[in-house]
Amino acid sequence: MTYAAFFRRLAAAAAEQTLPRFRQAGLVSNKLASGFDPVTEADQEAERAIVALISETYPEHGILGEEHGTKQGDGRHIWVIDPIDGTRAFISGLPVWGTLVGLTENGDAVAGMMSQPFTGELFYATRSGAFYEGPGGNRPLKTRQGTSLGDATLFTTTPAMFKGDKRAVFDRLEGSVRLSRYGVDCYAFAMLAAGSVDLVIEAGLQPYDIVALIPIIEQAGGVITTFDGGSAEGGGDVIAAGSAELHAAALDLIRS
Amino acid sequence: MTYAAFFRRLAAAAAEQTLPRFRQAGLVSNKLASGFDPVTEADQEAERAIVALISETYPEHGILGEEHGTKQGDGRHIWVIDPIDGTRAFISGLPVWGTLVGLTENGDAVAGMMSQPFTGELFYATRSGAFYEGPGGNRPLKTRQGTSLGDATLFTTTPAMFKGDKRAVFDRLEGSVRLSRYGVDCYAFAMLAAGSVDLVIEAGLQPYDIVALIPIIEQAGGVITTFDGGSAEGGGDVIAAGSAELHAAALDLIRS
Repeated sequence: MTYAAFFRRLAAAAAEQTLPRFRQAGLVSNKLASGFDPVTEADQEAERAIVALISETYPEHGILGEEHGTKQGDGRHIWVIDPIDGTRAFISGLPVWGTLVGLTENGDAVAGMMSQPFTGELFYATRSGAFYEGPGGNRPLKTRQGTSLGDATLFTTTPAMFKGDKRAVFDRLEGSVRLSRYGVDCYAFAMLAAGSVDLVIEAGLQPYDIVALIPIIEQAGGVITTFDGGSAEGGGDVIAAGSAELHAAALDLIRS
Repeated sequence: MTYAAFFRRLAAAAAEQTLPRFRQAGLVSNKLASGFDPVTEADQEAERAIVALISETYPEHGILGEEHGTKQGDGRHIWVIDPIDGTRAFISGLPVWGTLVGLTENGDAVAGMMSQPFTGELFYATRSGAFYEGPGGNRPLKTRQGTSLGDATLFTTTPAMFKGDKRAVFDRLEGSVRLSRYGVDCYAFAMLAAGSVDLVIEAGLQPYDIVALIPIIEQAGGVITTFDGGSAEGGGDVIAAGSAELHAAALDLIRS
Protein backbone atom coordinates (compact mmCIF):
# COMPACT_ATOMS: atom_id res chain seq x y z
CA MET A 1 0.00 0.00 0.00
CA THR A 2 1.27 3.47 -0.84
CA TYR A 3 1.34 6.01 1.95
CA ALA A 4 -1.27 7.99 -0.01
CA ALA A 5 -3.69 5.05 0.09
CA PHE A 6 -2.84 4.46 3.75
CA PHE A 7 -3.58 8.10 4.60
CA ARG A 8 -7.01 7.82 2.96
CA ARG A 9 -7.72 4.75 5.12
CA LEU A 10 -6.49 6.49 8.28
CA ALA A 11 -8.60 9.57 7.51
CA ALA A 12 -11.72 7.46 7.00
CA ALA A 13 -11.14 5.42 10.17
CA ALA A 14 -10.60 8.56 12.27
CA ALA A 15 -13.63 10.31 10.73
CA GLU A 16 -15.84 7.42 11.83
CA GLN A 17 -14.95 8.32 15.41
CA THR A 18 -14.74 12.11 15.27
CA LEU A 19 -17.54 13.16 12.95
CA PRO A 20 -20.50 11.62 14.82
CA ARG A 21 -19.27 13.40 17.98
CA PHE A 22 -18.80 16.81 16.30
CA ARG A 23 -21.50 19.38 17.25
CA GLN A 24 -23.17 16.90 19.57
CA ALA A 25 -26.17 18.38 21.34
CA GLY A 26 -24.89 17.09 24.68
CA LEU A 27 -21.55 18.81 24.24
CA VAL A 28 -20.80 21.27 27.01
CA SER A 29 -17.85 23.57 27.30
CA ASN A 30 -17.41 22.67 30.95
CA LYS A 31 -15.97 19.16 30.92
CA LEU A 32 -16.14 18.77 34.68
CA ALA A 33 -19.86 19.51 34.93
CA SER A 34 -20.74 16.84 32.42
CA GLY A 35 -20.74 13.09 32.45
CA PHE A 36 -20.62 13.13 28.66
CA ASP A 37 -17.47 14.38 26.99
CA PRO A 38 -17.56 13.82 23.23
CA VAL A 39 -14.25 15.64 22.65
CA THR A 40 -12.14 13.36 24.79
CA GLU A 41 -14.14 10.39 23.58
CA ALA A 42 -13.59 11.38 19.93
CA ASP A 43 -9.89 11.99 20.61
CA GLN A 44 -9.37 8.63 22.31
CA GLU A 45 -11.45 6.54 19.92
CA ALA A 46 -9.90 8.14 16.84
CA GLU A 47 -6.41 7.52 18.16
CA ARG A 48 -7.34 3.92 18.97
CA ALA A 49 -8.55 3.42 15.38
CA ILE A 50 -5.42 5.03 13.93
CA VAL A 51 -3.08 3.01 16.17
CA ALA A 52 -4.89 -0.20 15.21
CA LEU A 53 -4.44 0.48 11.49
CA ILE A 54 -0.77 1.38 11.89
CA SER A 55 -0.02 -1.68 14.06
CA GLU A 56 -1.73 -3.92 11.52
CA THR A 57 -0.08 -2.38 8.46
CA TYR A 58 3.37 -1.53 9.81
CA PRO A 59 3.79 -3.83 12.85
CA GLU A 60 7.50 -3.06 13.15
CA HIS A 61 7.04 0.73 13.38
CA GLY A 62 6.97 2.81 16.56
CA ILE A 63 4.02 5.03 17.55
CA LEU A 64 3.82 8.31 19.48
CA GLY A 65 0.23 9.31 20.25
CA GLU A 66 -1.19 12.25 22.16
CA GLU A 67 -3.61 10.06 24.10
CA HIS A 68 -2.18 6.55 24.43
CA GLY A 69 1.55 7.17 24.83
CA THR A 70 4.36 5.51 22.93
CA LYS A 71 5.30 2.21 21.34
CA GLN A 72 9.02 1.81 20.69
CA GLY A 73 8.98 -0.30 17.50
CA ASP A 74 12.08 -0.61 15.32
CA GLY A 75 13.43 2.69 16.65
CA ARG A 76 13.71 3.93 13.08
CA HIS A 77 10.12 4.63 11.99
CA ILE A 78 7.79 6.47 14.34
CA TRP A 79 4.20 7.45 13.58
CA VAL A 80 3.18 10.65 15.39
CA ILE A 81 -0.53 11.15 15.99
CA ASP A 82 -2.85 13.95 17.09
CA PRO A 83 -6.38 12.63 16.57
CA ILE A 84 -7.98 16.09 17.00
CA ASP A 85 -5.67 19.05 16.60
CA GLY A 86 -7.73 22.12 17.45
CA THR A 87 -9.87 20.78 20.28
CA ARG A 88 -11.20 24.27 21.01
CA ALA A 89 -12.37 24.63 17.40
CA PHE A 90 -13.97 21.18 17.71
CA ILE A 91 -15.94 22.09 20.84
CA SER A 92 -16.97 25.40 19.26
CA GLY A 93 -18.40 23.68 16.17
CA LEU A 94 -15.85 25.19 13.76
CA PRO A 95 -14.67 22.98 10.88
CA VAL A 96 -11.02 24.02 11.21
CA TRP A 97 -9.70 21.23 13.45
CA GLY A 98 -7.89 18.29 11.90
CA THR A 99 -6.66 14.74 12.39
CA LEU A 100 -2.86 14.70 12.16
CA VAL A 101 -0.74 11.64 11.42
CA GLY A 102 2.94 11.95 10.53
CA LEU A 103 5.77 9.51 9.96
CA THR A 104 9.37 10.13 10.99
CA GLU A 105 12.29 8.13 9.74
CA ASN A 106 15.40 8.46 11.87
CA GLY A 107 13.89 11.62 13.31
CA ASP A 108 13.00 13.29 10.00
CA ALA A 109 9.35 13.81 9.09
CA VAL A 110 9.00 12.07 5.71
CA ALA A 111 5.22 11.73 5.25
CA GLY A 112 2.13 13.19 6.85
CA MET A 113 -1.56 13.93 6.58
CA MET A 114 -4.09 16.45 7.88
CA SER A 115 -7.70 15.39 7.47
CA GLN A 116 -10.78 17.61 8.04
CA PRO A 117 -13.71 15.22 7.73
CA PHE A 118 -16.58 17.74 8.03
CA THR A 119 -15.37 19.58 4.91
CA GLY A 120 -14.15 16.31 3.37
CA GLU A 121 -10.61 17.59 2.90
CA LEU A 122 -7.37 15.61 3.00
CA PHE A 123 -3.98 17.32 2.83
CA TYR A 124 -1.06 14.89 2.68
CA ALA A 125 2.54 14.49 1.62
CA THR A 126 4.76 11.58 0.73
CA ARG A 127 8.21 11.57 -0.89
CA SER A 128 6.32 12.06 -4.20
CA GLY A 129 4.96 15.46 -3.24
CA ALA A 130 2.14 17.21 -1.38
CA PHE A 131 -1.47 16.81 -2.42
CA TYR A 132 -5.00 18.00 -1.71
CA GLU A 133 -8.09 15.84 -2.09
CA GLY A 134 -11.53 17.34 -1.49
CA PRO A 135 -14.14 19.86 -2.67
CA GLY A 136 -12.95 21.89 -5.62
CA GLY A 137 -10.99 18.95 -7.02
CA ASN A 138 -7.83 17.02 -6.20
CA ARG A 139 -4.55 18.79 -6.94
CA PRO A 140 -0.92 19.13 -5.88
CA LEU A 141 -0.34 21.58 -3.03
CA LYS A 142 1.85 24.55 -3.86
CA THR A 143 2.79 27.36 -1.51
CA ARG A 144 2.58 30.97 -2.68
CA GLN A 145 6.01 32.21 -3.77
CA GLY A 146 7.30 35.74 -4.15
CA THR A 147 5.37 37.37 -1.29
CA SER A 148 7.39 39.91 0.68
CA LEU A 149 7.05 40.27 4.45
CA GLY A 150 5.08 43.50 3.97
CA ASP A 151 2.56 41.75 1.71
CA ALA A 152 2.26 38.55 3.76
CA THR A 153 -0.76 37.04 5.52
CA LEU A 154 0.23 35.72 8.97
CA PHE A 155 -1.67 33.23 11.13
CA THR A 156 -1.33 32.23 14.74
CA THR A 157 -3.71 30.44 17.08
CA THR A 158 -3.66 33.33 19.55
CA PRO A 159 -1.19 36.09 20.46
CA ALA A 160 -1.72 35.01 24.08
CA MET A 161 0.48 31.94 23.46
CA PHE A 162 3.52 34.21 23.21
CA LYS A 163 4.80 35.07 26.70
CA GLY A 164 7.42 37.62 27.74
CA ASP A 165 10.12 38.22 25.12
CA LYS A 166 8.29 36.02 22.64
CA ARG A 167 5.30 38.35 22.72
CA ALA A 168 7.56 41.20 21.62
CA VAL A 169 8.81 38.98 18.78
CA PHE A 170 5.26 38.18 17.72
CA ASP A 171 4.15 41.81 17.93
CA ARG A 172 7.11 42.84 15.77
CA LEU A 173 6.27 40.20 13.18
CA GLU A 174 2.56 41.08 13.24
CA GLY A 175 3.46 44.74 12.79
CA SER A 176 5.49 43.90 9.68
CA VAL A 177 2.87 41.97 7.69
CA ARG A 178 -0.12 43.06 5.69
CA LEU A 179 -2.77 40.92 7.40
CA SER A 180 -2.75 38.83 10.57
CA ARG A 181 -5.43 36.40 11.64
CA TYR A 182 -5.97 34.23 14.67
CA GLY A 183 -7.49 30.98 15.66
CA VAL A 184 -7.21 28.00 13.35
CA ASP A 185 -4.47 25.62 14.57
CA CYS A 186 -3.44 23.00 11.96
CA TYR A 187 -5.77 24.43 9.33
CA ALA A 188 -3.52 27.50 9.00
CA PHE A 189 -0.54 25.27 8.10
CA ALA A 190 -2.72 23.46 5.52
CA MET A 191 -3.71 26.81 3.98
CA LEU A 192 -0.03 27.78 3.89
CA ALA A 193 0.70 24.59 1.93
CA ALA A 194 -2.26 25.40 -0.34
CA GLY A 195 -0.90 28.87 -1.12
CA SER A 196 -3.60 30.93 0.64
CA VAL A 197 -1.52 31.97 3.66
CA ASP A 198 2.15 33.05 3.76
CA LEU A 199 3.30 32.70 7.36
CA VAL A 200 2.25 30.66 10.40
CA ILE A 201 3.85 31.14 13.80
CA GLU A 202 3.13 29.06 16.91
CA ALA A 203 4.75 28.71 20.34
CA GLY A 204 5.19 25.73 22.63
CA LEU A 205 4.14 23.01 20.18
CA GLN A 206 4.37 19.32 20.95
CA PRO A 207 5.83 16.97 18.29
CA TYR A 208 2.33 15.58 17.60
CA ASP A 209 1.12 19.13 16.80
CA ILE A 210 3.58 19.56 13.97
CA VAL A 211 5.30 16.39 12.66
CA ALA A 212 2.45 15.51 10.27
CA LEU A 213 2.47 19.03 8.83
CA ILE A 214 6.21 19.34 8.16
CA PRO A 215 6.31 17.17 5.00
CA ILE A 216 3.11 18.80 3.71
CA ILE A 217 4.65 22.27 4.02
CA GLU A 218 8.08 21.26 2.71
CA GLN A 219 6.83 19.21 -0.25
CA ALA A 220 4.50 22.08 -1.18
CA GLY A 221 7.48 24.45 -1.44
CA GLY A 222 7.50 25.99 2.02
CA VAL A 223 10.01 26.10 4.86
CA ILE A 224 9.35 25.35 8.51
CA THR A 225 11.83 25.57 11.41
CA THR A 226 12.03 26.51 15.05
CA PHE A 227 12.74 30.16 15.92
CA ASP A 228 16.47 29.38 16.00
CA GLY A 229 16.37 27.89 12.51
CA GLY A 230 16.54 24.28 13.67
CA SER A 231 14.44 21.24 12.81
CA ALA A 232 10.75 21.55 13.78
CA GLU A 233 10.23 17.81 14.37
CA GLY A 234 10.63 18.25 18.14
CA GLY A 235 7.96 20.97 18.32
CA GLY A 236 8.63 24.11 20.36
CA ASP A 237 8.40 27.60 18.86
CA VAL A 238 7.88 27.24 15.17
CA ILE A 239 7.71 29.49 12.09
CA ALA A 240 6.53 28.30 8.68
CA ALA A 241 6.68 30.30 5.46
CA GLY A 242 5.53 29.76 1.89
CA SER A 243 8.97 30.48 0.44
CA ALA A 244 12.61 30.26 1.54
CA GLU A 245 13.01 34.03 1.06
CA LEU A 246 10.03 34.87 3.24
CA HIS A 247 11.16 32.38 5.89
CA ALA A 248 14.61 33.99 5.97
CA ALA A 249 13.07 37.46 6.29
CA ALA A 250 10.80 36.34 9.15
CA LEU A 251 13.66 34.58 10.92
CA ASP A 252 15.84 37.71 10.62
CA LEU A 253 13.06 39.72 12.22
CA ILE A 254 12.55 37.15 15.00
CA ARG A 255 16.27 37.18 15.84
CA SER A 256 16.74 40.95 15.63
CA MET B 1 -42.57 31.00 -2.34
CA THR B 2 -41.71 30.66 1.35
CA TYR B 3 -38.75 32.60 2.66
CA ALA B 4 -37.08 29.23 3.36
CA ALA B 5 -37.33 28.27 -0.32
CA PHE B 6 -36.20 31.74 -1.33
CA PHE B 7 -33.13 31.53 0.93
CA ARG B 8 -32.15 28.23 -0.70
CA ARG B 9 -32.37 29.93 -4.12
CA LEU B 10 -30.36 32.93 -2.93
CA ALA B 11 -27.70 30.67 -1.40
CA ALA B 12 -27.37 28.70 -4.64
CA ALA B 13 -27.19 31.82 -6.81
CA ALA B 14 -24.53 33.41 -4.58
CA ALA B 15 -22.50 30.17 -4.40
CA GLU B 16 -22.29 30.10 -8.20
CA GLN B 17 -20.37 33.36 -7.98
CA THR B 18 -18.32 32.89 -4.80
CA LEU B 19 -17.27 29.26 -4.84
CA PRO B 20 -15.40 29.19 -8.20
CA ARG B 21 -13.39 32.21 -6.97
CA PHE B 22 -12.56 30.71 -3.55
CA ARG B 23 -8.90 29.55 -3.21
CA GLN B 24 -8.13 30.71 -6.71
CA ALA B 25 -4.50 30.13 -7.64
CA GLY B 26 -4.19 33.73 -8.86
CA LEU B 27 -5.42 35.16 -5.59
CA VAL B 28 -2.92 37.46 -3.96
CA SER B 29 -3.20 39.18 -0.61
CA ASN B 30 -2.02 42.46 -2.10
CA LYS B 31 -4.98 43.73 -4.12
CA LEU B 32 -3.05 46.65 -5.54
CA ALA B 33 -0.27 44.54 -7.00
CA SER B 34 -2.69 42.37 -8.90
CA GLY B 35 -4.85 42.88 -11.93
CA PHE B 36 -6.97 39.94 -10.81
CA ASP B 37 -9.04 40.32 -7.66
CA PRO B 38 -11.35 37.34 -7.13
CA VAL B 39 -12.55 38.61 -3.75
CA THR B 40 -14.01 41.85 -5.00
CA GLU B 41 -15.24 40.08 -8.11
CA ALA B 42 -16.94 37.37 -6.04
CA ASP B 43 -18.43 40.03 -3.74
CA GLN B 44 -19.80 42.12 -6.60
CA GLU B 45 -21.07 39.25 -8.74
CA ALA B 46 -22.72 37.50 -5.78
CA GLU B 47 -24.47 40.71 -4.76
CA ARG B 48 -25.60 41.27 -8.35
CA ALA B 49 -27.12 37.76 -8.42
CA ILE B 50 -28.83 38.25 -5.05
CA VAL B 51 -30.21 41.68 -6.01
CA ALA B 52 -31.54 40.27 -9.29
CA LEU B 53 -33.42 37.48 -7.49
CA ILE B 54 -34.88 39.86 -4.89
CA SER B 55 -35.95 42.41 -7.51
CA GLU B 56 -37.61 39.68 -9.54
CA THR B 57 -39.35 38.01 -6.57
CA TYR B 58 -40.18 41.03 -4.40
CA PRO B 59 -40.16 43.98 -6.84
CA GLU B 60 -41.76 46.33 -4.30
CA HIS B 61 -39.11 45.75 -1.60
CA GLY B 62 -36.13 47.97 -0.85
CA ILE B 63 -32.52 46.73 -0.95
CA LEU B 64 -29.41 47.72 1.03
CA GLY B 65 -26.27 46.09 -0.32
CA GLU B 66 -22.63 46.39 0.73
CA GLU B 67 -21.42 46.76 -2.84
CA HIS B 68 -24.18 48.33 -4.95
CA GLY B 69 -25.84 50.78 -2.56
CA THR B 70 -29.52 51.15 -1.86
CA LYS B 71 -32.90 50.87 -3.54
CA GLN B 72 -35.71 52.60 -1.68
CA GLY B 73 -38.67 50.32 -2.51
CA ASP B 74 -41.87 50.46 -0.47
CA GLY B 75 -40.00 51.88 2.51
CA ARG B 76 -41.36 49.06 4.64
CA HIS B 77 -39.40 45.97 3.55
CA ILE B 78 -35.65 46.21 3.11
CA TRP B 79 -33.33 43.35 2.17
CA VAL B 80 -29.87 43.79 3.67
CA ILE B 81 -27.01 42.00 1.89
CA ASP B 82 -23.37 41.14 2.57
CA PRO B 83 -22.33 38.81 -0.24
CA ILE B 84 -19.08 37.77 1.54
CA ASP B 85 -18.94 38.43 5.26
CA GLY B 86 -15.42 37.49 6.36
CA THR B 87 -13.39 38.66 3.37
CA ARG B 88 -10.15 38.00 5.22
CA ALA B 89 -11.19 34.39 5.86
CA PHE B 90 -12.11 34.13 2.17
CA ILE B 91 -8.70 35.34 0.96
CA SER B 92 -6.99 33.05 3.48
CA GLY B 93 -8.81 29.97 2.18
CA LEU B 94 -10.75 29.35 5.42
CA PRO B 95 -14.32 28.04 5.09
CA VAL B 96 -15.71 30.33 7.79
CA TRP B 97 -16.94 33.25 5.67
CA GLY B 98 -20.59 33.47 4.71
CA THR B 99 -23.16 35.04 2.43
CA LEU B 100 -25.59 37.11 4.52
CA VAL B 101 -29.07 38.17 3.42
CA GLY B 102 -31.57 39.61 5.91
CA LEU B 103 -35.02 41.14 5.64
CA THR B 104 -36.23 44.02 7.80
CA GLU B 105 -39.85 45.02 8.11
CA ASN B 106 -40.35 48.51 9.48
CA GLY B 107 -36.81 48.35 10.79
CA ASP B 108 -37.08 44.97 12.54
CA ALA B 109 -35.08 42.01 11.24
CA VAL B 110 -37.74 39.33 10.57
CA ALA B 111 -35.92 36.79 8.40
CA GLY B 112 -32.34 36.04 7.47
CA MET B 113 -29.84 33.55 6.13
CA MET B 114 -26.13 32.75 6.41
CA SER B 115 -24.82 30.42 3.73
CA GLN B 116 -21.36 28.77 3.67
CA PRO B 117 -21.18 27.10 0.27
CA PHE B 118 -17.81 25.32 0.66
CA THR B 119 -19.12 23.31 3.62
CA GLY B 120 -22.62 23.23 2.09
CA GLU B 121 -24.25 24.78 5.15
CA LEU B 122 -27.30 27.03 5.30
CA PHE B 123 -28.41 28.69 8.54
CA TYR B 124 -31.67 30.62 8.22
CA ALA B 125 -34.65 31.95 10.13
CA THR B 126 -38.18 32.94 9.27
CA ARG B 127 -41.13 33.69 11.56
CA SER B 128 -41.50 29.87 11.83
CA GLY B 129 -38.15 29.38 13.55
CA ALA B 130 -34.43 28.97 12.90
CA PHE B 131 -33.05 26.06 10.92
CA TYR B 132 -29.85 24.38 9.78
CA GLU B 133 -29.49 22.52 6.48
CA GLY B 134 -26.22 20.78 5.67
CA PRO B 135 -23.81 17.97 6.58
CA GLY B 136 -24.92 16.04 9.64
CA GLY B 137 -28.58 16.47 8.72
CA ASN B 138 -31.18 19.25 8.67
CA ARG B 139 -32.48 20.39 12.06
CA PRO B 140 -33.88 23.33 14.00
CA LEU B 141 -31.24 25.63 15.48
CA LYS B 142 -31.25 25.88 19.26
CA THR B 143 -28.88 27.94 21.37
CA ARG B 144 -27.25 26.43 24.45
CA GLN B 145 -29.16 27.42 27.58
CA GLY B 146 -28.05 27.42 31.20
CA THR B 147 -24.39 28.36 30.67
CA SER B 148 -23.04 30.79 33.26
CA LEU B 149 -20.58 33.55 32.32
CA GLY B 150 -17.76 31.58 33.97
CA ASP B 151 -18.48 28.51 31.82
CA ALA B 152 -19.09 30.37 28.57
CA THR B 153 -17.22 30.18 25.26
CA LEU B 154 -16.73 33.68 23.80
CA PHE B 155 -15.91 34.59 20.20
CA THR B 156 -14.76 37.80 18.59
CA THR B 157 -13.11 38.48 15.25
CA THR B 158 -10.10 40.12 16.89
CA PRO B 159 -9.46 41.94 20.19
CA ALA B 160 -7.83 44.65 18.05
CA MET B 161 -11.28 45.86 16.95
CA PHE B 162 -11.89 47.17 20.48
CA LYS B 163 -10.27 50.57 20.91
CA GLY B 164 -9.76 52.64 24.09
CA ASP B 165 -12.46 52.07 26.72
CA LYS B 166 -13.99 49.30 24.66
CA ARG B 167 -10.77 47.31 24.88
CA ALA B 168 -11.05 47.38 28.67
CA VAL B 169 -14.64 46.15 28.34
CA PHE B 170 -13.56 43.32 26.07
CA ASP B 171 -10.63 42.35 28.31
CA ARG B 172 -12.97 42.25 31.33
CA LEU B 173 -15.42 40.04 29.48
CA GLU B 174 -12.66 37.78 28.15
CA GLY B 175 -11.28 37.48 31.69
CA SER B 176 -14.67 36.30 32.95
CA VAL B 177 -15.33 33.43 30.54
CA ARG B 178 -13.96 29.91 30.33
CA LEU B 179 -12.72 30.00 26.75
CA SER B 180 -12.26 32.80 24.24
CA ARG B 181 -11.51 32.36 20.57
CA TYR B 182 -10.80 34.74 17.71
CA GLY B 183 -11.29 35.05 14.03
CA VAL B 184 -14.46 33.76 12.43
CA ASP B 185 -16.88 36.65 11.67
CA CYS B 186 -20.44 35.53 10.87
CA TYR B 187 -19.62 31.87 11.46
CA ALA B 188 -19.34 32.55 15.21
CA PHE B 189 -22.93 33.88 15.29
CA ALA B 190 -24.09 30.78 13.37
CA MET B 191 -22.34 28.55 15.92
CA LEU B 192 -24.02 30.52 18.71
CA ALA B 193 -27.40 29.80 17.11
CA ALA B 194 -26.39 26.13 16.76
CA GLY B 195 -25.57 25.86 20.48
CA SER B 196 -21.78 25.41 20.17
CA VAL B 197 -20.79 28.90 21.31
CA ASP B 198 -22.27 31.02 24.12
CA LEU B 199 -21.22 34.62 23.47
CA VAL B 200 -20.16 36.68 20.45
CA ILE B 201 -18.99 40.27 20.79
CA GLU B 202 -18.12 42.58 17.89
CA ALA B 203 -17.43 46.30 17.55
CA GLY B 204 -18.23 48.79 14.79
CA LEU B 205 -20.52 46.57 12.72
CA GLN B 206 -22.44 47.78 9.70
CA PRO B 207 -26.12 46.84 9.34
CA TYR B 208 -25.23 44.40 6.52
CA ASP B 209 -22.84 42.59 8.91
CA ILE B 210 -25.58 41.73 11.36
CA VAL B 211 -29.21 42.12 10.13
CA ALA B 212 -29.31 38.64 8.55
CA LEU B 213 -28.02 37.06 11.74
CA ILE B 214 -30.45 38.69 14.20
CA PRO B 215 -33.50 36.51 13.38
CA ILE B 216 -31.31 33.39 13.30
CA ILE B 217 -30.02 34.10 16.81
CA GLU B 218 -33.37 35.22 18.22
CA GLN B 219 -35.43 32.39 16.72
CA ALA B 220 -32.85 29.89 18.01
CA GLY B 221 -33.38 31.15 21.56
CA GLY B 222 -30.59 33.73 21.85
CA VAL B 223 -30.50 37.44 22.54
CA ILE B 224 -28.58 40.07 20.57
CA THR B 225 -28.36 43.80 21.30
CA THR B 226 -25.96 46.70 21.16
CA PHE B 227 -23.74 47.34 24.21
CA ASP B 228 -26.41 49.73 25.60
CA GLY B 229 -29.10 47.07 25.30
CA GLY B 230 -30.72 48.56 22.20
CA SER B 231 -31.72 47.01 18.89
CA ALA B 232 -28.81 45.58 16.87
CA GLU B 233 -30.37 46.22 13.45
CA GLY B 234 -28.33 49.40 12.99
CA GLY B 235 -25.03 47.62 13.66
CA GLY B 236 -22.46 49.22 15.97
CA ASP B 237 -21.07 47.44 19.04
CA VAL B 238 -22.97 44.24 19.46
CA ILE B 239 -23.22 41.41 22.02
CA ALA B 240 -25.05 38.14 21.36
CA ALA B 241 -25.70 35.41 23.91
CA GLY B 242 -27.26 31.96 23.83
CA SER B 243 -29.68 32.76 26.66
CA ALA B 244 -31.40 35.81 28.16
CA GLU B 245 -29.66 35.19 31.50
CA LEU B 246 -26.20 35.04 29.96
CA HIS B 247 -26.92 38.13 27.87
CA ALA B 248 -28.00 40.04 30.99
CA ALA B 249 -24.85 38.92 32.84
CA ALA B 250 -22.61 40.00 29.93
CA LEU B 251 -24.39 43.33 29.59
CA ASP B 252 -24.01 43.98 33.34
CA LEU B 253 -20.30 43.35 33.01
CA ILE B 254 -20.01 45.58 29.93
CA ARG B 255 -21.75 48.45 31.73
CA SER B 256 -19.92 48.08 35.04
